[in-house]
Amino acid sequence: MEQKAVQDFYPDDVAHCYGCGRLNEHGHQIKSFWDGDETVAKFFPKEYHTAIPGFVYGGLLASLIDCHGTGTAALVSYRLENRNYDTLPPFRFVTASLQVDFLRPTPLGGELELRGKIIEVKGKKVISEITISSNGAITARGVVVAVQMPESFLIK
Amino acid sequence: MEQKAVQDFYPDDVAHCYGCGRLNEHGHQIKSFWDGDETVAKFFPKEYHTAIPGFVYGGLLASLIDCHGTGTAALVSYRLENRNYDTLPPFRFVTASLQVDFLRPTPLGGELELRGKIIEVKGKKVISEITISSNGAITARGVVVAVQMPESFLIK
Repeated sequence: MEQKAVQDFYPDDVAHCYGCGRLNEHGHQIKSFWDGDETVAKFFPKEYHTAIPGFVYGGLLASLIDCHGTGTAALVSYRLENRNYDTLPPFRFVTASLQVDFLRPTPLGGELELRGKIIEVKGKKVISEITISSNGAITARGVVVAVQMPESFLIK
Repeated sequence: MEQKAVQDFYPDDVAHCYGCGRLNEHGHQIKSFWDGDETVAKFFPKEYHTAIPGFVYGGLLASLIDCHGTGTAALVSYRLENRNYDTLPPFRFVTASLQVDFLRPTPLGGELELRGKIIEVKGKKVISEITISSNGAITARGVVVAVQMPESFLIK
């Protein structure tokens, strides 16, 4: 199971996220996997995801960090309960806070790698550190505080 | 001059930002204005800017905060030098760090208002607090540390 992306198993009613929902045809559809004790996702920015010409828009980087952070929170929650991603109830997280440091410009025109490390799991909260690398060099680093989505968020 | 958006005066070679560049036809093209001692921008999310159905994607909110933060930095820089936006050299900022607290879900389907307050201006750095409101209620709050873009960022 662990070689599959957790987002591929989100129930349909929570699979429309612009960042990671497989049912959002306009969105980024990022996929978060385990790689040992770290989580990983890849993303290839479009040519129009520009900050200044030649570099990736910081808002996109913040979005990717945000979504890989919630994906990482779901991944670790299933792992801690030793559950497959298709078992119920699903783990689905929303972001409580996001902090991003833009360390250097991120070149536009190549694949980005996001890597996540778990900092803390406490109750319904998961804190992770997410880095973005381009050609092996870290260009942005963030911390995501994710909390399990309250049932009340769902519009019935 | 101050009733015009600062982004409308960015030189062409720095007007492609996905968040605020008037020359990026795929992007958000946000416009930041003064309103007294605060800055303001409006944005109407698209129906696909979904987090979970009915609510706005947090990554979009982070992007808007980021871009209105750099716009706010430019606005205050011109004001402090008592310069019109079309005078040279232009003030153009990039984000060094971004912190966002998502206070409550942001309903999808209405206009959002971003408001900026200057926290600190020090040398080439401007720190601002940016809030996002929906129907008069603040749903997200962020702090943006913006720094003047080094000339070396420009690809000649």
